[in-house]
Amino acid sequence: MNLSELPTPSLLLDRDQLARNIARMQNSADRLGVSLRPHLKTLKSARAAEELIAAGARGITVSTLKEAAYFLEHGISDITYAVGMVPAKLERAAQLIARGADLKIMTDSVHVARAVAEAAERGGTRFRLLIEIDCGDNRGGVQPGSEELLQIAQTLEGSLAELQGVLTHAGHSYGVDDIAAVARIAADERDAVVRAAERLRNAGHEVSTVSVGSTPTALFARELEGVTELRAGVYTVFDLDQQSRGVCDTGEIALSVLASVIGHNRAAGKILLDAGGLALSKDRSADRFRPEVGYGQLCELDGSPITELYVTSVSQEHGHVRVRDESDYARFPVGSRLRILPIHACMTAAAYDYFDVIENGEISDRWDRVNGW
Amino acid sequence: MNLSELPTPSLLLDRDQLARNIARMQNSADRLGVSLRPHLKTLKSARAAEELIAAGARGITVSTLKEAAYFLEHGISDITYAVGMVPAKLERAAQLIARGADLKIMTDSVHVARAVAEAAERGGTRFRLLIEIDCGDNRGGVQPGSEELLQIAQTLEGSLAELQGVLTHAGHSYGVDDIAAVARIAADERDAVVRAAERLRNAGHEVSTVSVGSTPTALFARELEGVTELRAGVYTVFDLDQQSRGVCDTGEIALSVLASVIGHNRAAGKILLDAGGLALSKDRSADRFRPEVGYGQLCELDGSPITELYVTSVSQEHGHVRVRDESDYARFPVGSRLRILPIHACMTAAAYDYFDVIENGEISDRWDRVNGW
Repeated sequence: MNLSELPTPSLLLDRDQLARNIARMQNSADRLGVSLRPHLKTLKSARAAEELIAAGARGITVSTLKEAAYFLEHGISDITYAVGMVPAKLERAAQLIARGADLKIMTDSVHVARAVAEAAERGGTRFRLLIEIDCGDNRGGVQPGSEELLQIAQTLEGSLAELQGVLTHAGHSYGVDDIAAVARIAADERDAVVRAAERLRNAGHEVSTVSVGSTPTALFARELEGVTELRAGVYTVFDLDQQSRGVCDTGEIALSVLASVIGHNRAAGKILLDAGGLALSKDRSADRFRPEVGYGQLCELDGSPITELYVTSVSQEHGHVRVRDESDYARFPVGSRLRILPIHACMTAAAYDYFDVIENGEISDRWDRVNGW
Repeated sequence: MNLSELPTPSLLLDRDQLARNIARMQNSADRLGVSLRPHLKTLKSARAAEELIAAGARGITVSTLKEAAYFLEHGISDITYAVGMVPAKLERAAQLIARGADLKIMTDSVHVARAVAEAAERGGTRFRLLIEIDCGDNRGGVQPGSEELLQIAQTLEGSLAELQGVLTHAGHSYGVDDIAAVARIAADERDAVVRAAERLRNAGHEVSTVSVGSTPTALFARELEGVTELRAGVYTVFDLDQQSRGVCDTGEIALSVLASVIGHNRAAGKILLDAGGLALSKDRSADRFRPEVGYGQLCELDGSPITELYVTSVSQEHGHVRVRDESDYARFPVGSRLRILPIHACMTAAAYDYFDVIENGEISDRWDRVNGW
């Protein structure tokens, strides 16, 4: 099957570029002397996870328990669920562990740690808990120097639940477009989690995992002494958000949306596509550094970007493209097809149940993915 | 089952409010003397379509051929596909017609009209075509006074394909928050499509359908002389986008996302929820008139809004809520639950495969929905 036969919109995954991106991050982890636990929140695909593991990944990271269940069904058991646990989700986590998952859960709350310890006793489940550390992102996590850090670890003592280690995410590395600044954030990320690990060890706790990661810091960290693993996800396919920050080149973006031209509105100076807010997402993360890219960069069917042609606005099922000049109408007639590079791959991919995998411009495979919660 | 037993995030549909919203729009259509063909792009649910039809709707509107196939499987055959057709989708449309769909398709392109006429001849399919008119929204559509309007109709002559009529959508009614301005846009919307119908009739073409609609114009049009039907969709559940424009009250919003508090970050002054960009969407349509609502308004479990508590930012699986003061941490402990009113219901609902339907605060039913293309 080729790209003229697929329905539109469809989600395309360039397998050769995926392999290059996987190798780039694995090389970075190898260089830094840490293991790589890729975040499957972007691809949510068992076939993709297999490629990652074959390339050297040790275990995976997920963002929902539904992902954890899906990957376990596909034979991948070493899973870190890297979103804060709540007591009501412990039963579902215990079921996954009973079915063979080597599941690590996470919290930054003494209250939740207590619930984990109690649920472990009640159900005989050996929960393994990571303590989330805030390294400056201001999302989840206790401060590395906080009292709560030690309290959470103490709460588990004497219960069946075990402390696994500490984890942080430098999400603020997405806020800069300067690689030297990314390297400084990577150093802060490392320092925060290593400091937390040391405080726990000094208090007599065993700390096996010291986990950091975000695509920018994982690629541009200078050293990660004391860290055991890297997590990152969007690097598998990259996107215009990452490109706008200098983390990747446009040519490294392995994900695109295949769309059809469904109309010309010459009075308004635009071409309309059948890929709108649902097919692309309404994410505008690239705005800060590249406002011109709007909701996506248009490409030829072979994947080469078309200069200055972007999805300038969207409604639910329509992508609006401001034409450069009259000649664009002849060049992109109604019914013709284009590809669109996404702003934020994780958000765009979530609208699709599968990837159409392309190799050498032909559809070679279809990889399912899991959505929802 | 009650709201403390559902997994989070979950999508809640308030059935009583849905019924009131359905009645409100049906009353508007009745008052204006036109039939109502609700747009199912928002709810994408057969059970919801049944409620609409029971309340007086005549046929439905859809935004994808996948929706059309889904509703046909559920016994609803009178369907308008109100996104521009392309030649490559005609075979799929013909299959739906062969399976019993009374499907109306739409274009604003002479090229597509020619492809429709040819496919009708080739496959023996009686396609019924609506011509899309631009009434000022600057999305799809030919100008009502344009030559293309007549050319599209002429293109069908002598083929098995039939002209069904004209259709327009005043999407620009979303750009104002002044009901008098909405009423003026509704008048323009009516004038554009009635003028197009007259020109077609004067040229000897039969025009059965003269279709207008957007939630604001459908509710606030003063008169629709010459129009045969109204289309609108988001009114079924409303959202903060519509509320910010004065089209509905907050209490009329029938859709919400159930979320759990997963962390407190006191250093950053925020509460974290397990509903982020995927669970809520990254749509910010309400920004223009109510920037403070961010990605959603927080509500108690009974649905009553919590003053000045909003999802202020999101990452993929995290909703960040800026606290008003210290007391919010005690009021919303980790593990507690909240509801979130969405910014744009169509975008939020698309992340879920079903609605958990609530009546009197209890889950009474689960309605499936169709996503994708």
